Amino acid sequence: MPHWKLTIAYDGTGFHGWQVQPGLTTVQGTLGEALQRVTGETVQPQASGRTDTGVHALGQVVSFSLSVDLPRENLHRALNNLLPPSIRVLNLEPVAASFHARFGSLRKTYEYRIFERRETPDRSPRVCMPFVAPYVWDCHWPLDLEAMEVATRAILGEHDFTSFAAADPSRKNSFDGESTGVFDPAIPQGNVRTVYSAAWRRTPELLTFRITGSGFLHNMVRNLVGTLVDVGRGFTPAEAMGEMLAARDRSAAGPTAPARGLFLVSVEYPGEAL
Amino acid sequence: MPHWKLTIAYDGTGFHGWQVQPGLTTVQGTLGEALQRVTGETVQPQASGRTDTGVHALGQVVSFSLSVDLPRENLHRALNNLLPPSIRVLNLEPVAASFHARFGSLRKTYEYRIFERRETPDRSPRVCMPFVAPYVWDCHWPLDLEAMEVATRAILGEHDFTSFAAADPSRKNSFDGESTGVFDPAIPQGNVRTVYSAAWRRTPELLTFRITGSGFLHNMVRNLVGTLVDVGRGFTPAEAMGEMLAARDRSAAGPTAPARGLFLVSVEYPGEAL
Repeated sequence: MPHWKLTIAYDGTGFHGWQVQPGLTTVQGTLGEALQRVTGETVQPQASGRTDTGVHALGQVVSFSLSVDLPRENLHRALNNLLPPSIRVLNLEPVAASFHARFGSLRKTYEYRIFERRETPDRSPRVCMPFVAPYVWDCHWPLDLEAMEVATRAILGEHDFTSFAAADPSRKNSFDGESTGVFDPAIPQGNVRTVYSAAWRRTPELLTFRITGSGFLHNMVRNLVGTLVDVGRGFTPAEAMGEMLAARDRSAAGPTAPARGLFLVSVEYPGEAL
Repeated sequence: MPHWKLTIAYDGTGFHGWQVQPGLTTVQGTLGEALQRVTGETVQPQASGRTDTGVHALGQVVSFSLSVDLPRENLHRALNNLLPPSIRVLNLEPVAASFHARFGSLRKTYEYRIFERRETPDRSPRVCMPFVAPYVWDCHWPLDLEAMEVATRAILGEHDFTSFAAADPSRKNSFDGESTGVFDPAIPQGNVRTVYSAAWRRTPELLTFRITGSGFLHNMVRNLVGTLVDVGRGFTPAEAMGEMLAARDRSAAGPTAPARGLFLVSVEYPGEAL
């Protein structure tokens, strides 16, 4: 029974998130239908984690098993022919039966893109072009990047991120990137996660936040970004970030940044060349 | 009675073209509604030319008159606040009552973007990312750019472009960029147009066609690109381009390229610094 690991990119704009929901167009449902049309089998592909409505992926990892044995290139080409242009299979490879996209991941990287509506040299307001708008948070306010960088340092390392997790008990501890320890028993449970790196990059066009961690709670990246933007606007002092973490209470932190600026960049598994 | 000239960008993906149509979302209709909400007046904004369903604009020019006299910056800001992110007002300026976006234009520039699905160095097929797909023609075939450039030379200068115009008598001579001679009586009537420049540019990501002319017939750029891609594929010899023009018959030329790759880049008017 062949097992496959897919790496896919998708534009989340037209999807009600990853997970299958009756009557709604989702990435998992659309991919499952394409797999069924290629193989005749009913397949429920598993992703490294759910993404919410409007969230994009540059490198989501998906695993599934088939009964039929298909040549890799044929399966790759057939899937891209059947999938809409908003979902692309970037890579497809056979993996051991023990591989599971969701339970085996070591590290994940997300990116969040902000369009800064700063004034141009002639003092006219910059405009967020329509072709960019679905993929950024169009921020109206001047942002103090230095303060945001100070606040960002507080989240590096291992912390309980309850203050930045959606207050959503039914999905708690199971939303995204929860490592069960099958491959790495050292990864902690509960709402404790390790942030390996988190950094901002400003270009003339965009302000981009990139974060790599052991896993992420539901809405964690969007809640971190919303809070850090509050710091950048001067609503919250940079030094408050540590207290917010310590509070372990969602109401202690800032708002949730819009979904459309968020991209799942990559997911790493044990044994991969990093 | 103040007259205004708007320069707007739009993502054509979600619109049934420029022109108002009952029950359908169009750019003209959406802009007219925003103007009505700002001013309380019923306004039918006029564009330099209609764009079809799915065609985008980087710099469409629009004119309209209002009874109310509003400060320029307030009107600009109010429109961008009310319009969806898929339409942006880039510039707004008061103009003489004689200015008409459609009848006064001197030259227009369009761009057509092709994603070439050439093989990567490791022989895996290149994939058109979901974020690019709405704005390009994803071409499956290797394209001979040199042959396309030879064929492109045949369209430079003044020609009767009937072979490249939609066979659509009701819109003939009135679709796009028809100059009435109010500002430039030298511009010819009928299906004769002048192409001032037309050139291809290849980057690792895209193959781009940019064309500037006195005006364009309905579907003219898409029919030119579809025919030039036939040349690039080897379906049609580059030398046939002149004969196709001479035939003055739509059936003599090649297919229509998809709308999603086409952008109206800019429109020039007399008296502007070029």
